[in-house]
Amino acid sequence: MSAPLKVAVAGLGVVGAETVRLIAEQGEILTRRCGRPVIVTAVSARERGRDRGISLDGIEWFDDSATMARDADADVICELIGGSDGIARDVCDAAMAAGRHVVTANKALIAMHGAGLGNTADAAGLTLAYEAAVAGGIPIIKALREGLAANRVTHLQGILNGTCNYILTVMRETGRDFSEILAEAQAHGYAEADPTFDVDGIDAAHKLAILTSVAFGCVIDFDAVHIEGIRHIDAIDIRFATELGYRIKLLGIAEMTDGGIQQRVHPAMVPIEAPIASVEGVFNGVVTEGDFVGTTMFEGRGAGAGPTASAVVADIVDIARGRGTPTFGVPTEELQTLRVAPMDERIGLYYVRVMVHDKPGIFADIAGALRDSQISIESAIQRGRAEGGIVPVVLTTHETKEAAMQHALGLIGALDSVAETPRMIRIETL
Amino acid sequence: MSAPLKVAVAGLGVVGAETVRLIAEQGEILTRRCGRPVIVTAVSARERGRDRGISLDGIEWFDDSATMARDADADVICELIGGSDGIARDVCDAAMAAGRHVVTANKALIAMHGAGLGNTADAAGLTLAYEAAVAGGIPIIKALREGLAANRVTHLQGILNGTCNYILTVMRETGRDFSEILAEAQAHGYAEADPTFDVDGIDAAHKLAILTSVAFGCVIDFDAVHIEGIRHIDAIDIRFATELGYRIKLLGIAEMTDGGIQQRVHPAMVPIEAPIASVEGVFNGVVTEGDFVGTTMFEGRGAGAGPTASAVVADIVDIARGRGTPTFGVPTEELQTLRVAPMDERIGLYYVRVMVHDKPGIFADIAGALRDSQISIESAIQRGRAEGGIVPVVLTTHETKEAAMQHALGLIGALDSVAETPRMIRIETL
Repeated sequence: MSAPLKVAVAGLGVVGAETVRLIAEQGEILTRRCGRPVIVTAVSARERGRDRGISLDGIEWFDDSATMARDADADVICELIGGSDGIARDVCDAAMAAGRHVVTANKALIAMHGAGLGNTADAAGLTLAYEAAVAGGIPIIKALREGLAANRVTHLQGILNGTCNYILTVMRETGRDFSEILAEAQAHGYAEADPTFDVDGIDAAHKLAILTSVAFGCVIDFDAVHIEGIRHIDAIDIRFATELGYRIKLLGIAEMTDGGIQQRVHPAMVPIEAPIASVEGVFNGVVTEGDFVGTTMFEGRGAGAGPTASAVVADIVDIARGRGTPTFGVPTEELQTLRVAPMDERIGLYYVRVMVHDKPGIFADIAGALRDSQISIESAIQRGRAEGGIVPVVLTTHETKEAAMQHALGLIGALDSVAETPRMIRIETL
Repeated sequence: MSAPLKVAVAGLGVVGAETVRLIAEQGEILTRRCGRPVIVTAVSARERGRDRGISLDGIEWFDDSATMARDADADVICELIGGSDGIARDVCDAAMAAGRHVVTANKALIAMHGAGLGNTADAAGLTLAYEAAVAGGIPIIKALREGLAANRVTHLQGILNGTCNYILTVMRETGRDFSEILAEAQAHGYAEADPTFDVDGIDAAHKLAILTSVAFGCVIDFDAVHIEGIRHIDAIDIRFATELGYRIKLLGIAEMTDGGIQQRVHPAMVPIEAPIASVEGVFNGVVTEGDFVGTTMFEGRGAGAGPTASAVVADIVDIARGRGTPTFGVPTEELQTLRVAPMDERIGLYYVRVMVHDKPGIFADIAGALRDSQISIESAIQRGRAEGGIVPVVLTTHETKEAAMQHALGLIGALDSVAETPRMIRIETL
């Protein structure tokens, strides 16, 4: 039996506490899978007294996480504090400076500073692992870096934020509005008090930036992600989506185009029969296209203490077994800087909803605006009459460029009979 | 740059040739992901002259695969011949005796001889890798051995045979019979001339036995798998399944029960909304339940040259990077021998179809047989009248034991008015 692998856990929130609990409860299984025991030797958190439902007997306590990262008797530091800067960053820097491996669940940190941290880790021959940062319990980083390593990935799309997927699922099931469901989700603890990171797509964008780097072998580039959230999705759009054979999902998409790599997070309509359409509620899902393997899909719980701790400990098992991999699958200094294909160059189908004053000729005006933007209409629904009132006109288009669609939306929005800013949702078929 | 990893490929059928092609075409990407070049140094096959659409320039040719495994200038031997014994076995034995790692796509070999081969590999510190043996391009072995290593798996179910799934999918889509679709699949090359291994469930059982060992940390035990194929699935059962809200799939199931580990391959009805129900055509899918991660699902192409070569080369990348793992996730000698829960102890729901002579009282007789077997009826459909003719009676049950169901089927089959052996399909809800 080899010497135990010693782990220090920085941050004892729900994930940190669950990680300590998992390592204690699965001791026998982990020893066999690691070829050596895994033990928690140190923890750090702000409040020492709080009851976290776990035993900390025999575990050294540190009030300061960065001090622990440097001084604890540990081979691996788990950074489970969160945030792209501040203490979390200090912990990772201190740990690697002291020659310790780092395991983190921190997507913001990796998305913003992954390149620098990866260089440090690779140069020192240390592991910087972050399976728990993306899609919770789904081993998607391992799948992309190792399981699909023989492939050139051409396309990747994912449901990466469970809060948004939960809200969109309940909106569809109940027919109710975004703001109501969000308020309920907050009351139940499924959504944060400040929901901005989730519902405005930033959390999904962090995760997408990480996946893109691993899948395409390019330098992580969070600033290149086009980001739209789900606040503007109305109940009426969900109904029309169902009628047209689609589900609305907040997708993170990365694809290699003729013009370079494109990364975008936005609500999208996906065909009901597409595998990703069946990823509902708090679940996450990732679909990849590889040149040899074809389409592969991974689905599981995207958040929560258990799934996140499962991913954290999987990274620890890799370290215990000596299974090393460069941070982003290839040495960080060999990551490529790819041309960024701007959002204007997105090519695809579109759904457009226009609320109009119900007068003769309005449909011709909208169709004219699309024609003048070189866009051809695939289907149109003009339902419900309300003489003098406001009614929806819904259109789907054939394949067109984003720039043309934005041009058309400008023309349509300026029409006299149009009552509100037109709503557009991209249709994604894989 | 480290020295190249030298690979010898035994068997140049579609998978072997595709593996050689992949390694040549993805040279740049593999070098970065492996930290060293991967080169094919030797190949072996029976017919030297055949055009396989690949260049073998500079690659040493062997007529005898076992000789190549022993003598070739190679670090890794890929066994892509197939078959549980004979040459395939000789190649693996010869390779490991000569200190070479082995990568194989051979499910029969691993299912039948995995324990012995695993002991040899573990004792010699060699890798015996077989990602390609199960579920084609899906990195499910890696997911179970590494990605979900922090979990105690409690339940696993998979669609593990693409031929059966294709036949069942087309039967549902067209309403046509098994034998017709099988004949077409054979004509198109989707099914073998001798379809026994596929349609009788043996291929799925090989794969299930492997998954079970990896997921539950137990000694591989192919003989413990209860096996039924899909030959007795009729078009009428597919129609009733749809009406009842189910899809019929050939499932491989492994679960830990109070009575031990249960492994079984048989047709099953799964709820239409279950993620595995949407795995259609030639795709494979595996759903696992882990105690911390919850439900995780993996889906992708289960066969074909590209997906299989993708999995073979993923194993090669692991070897090139020095990422070693015991054959079944834990040292083979530490695998547990678990009590086998016999099929009689399966507890669950059942679908039963009885073809009866349409006379008064027959329904009461069938209901009586179920009552006498302590089984309660959940729903019943008696549709279509044909005075004096034969009509179906369809029942679904509440939870009951397999032994009780077999008892009831005996009683029902012996009833005077019953025209054919009753058909039973297990309902699986996860």
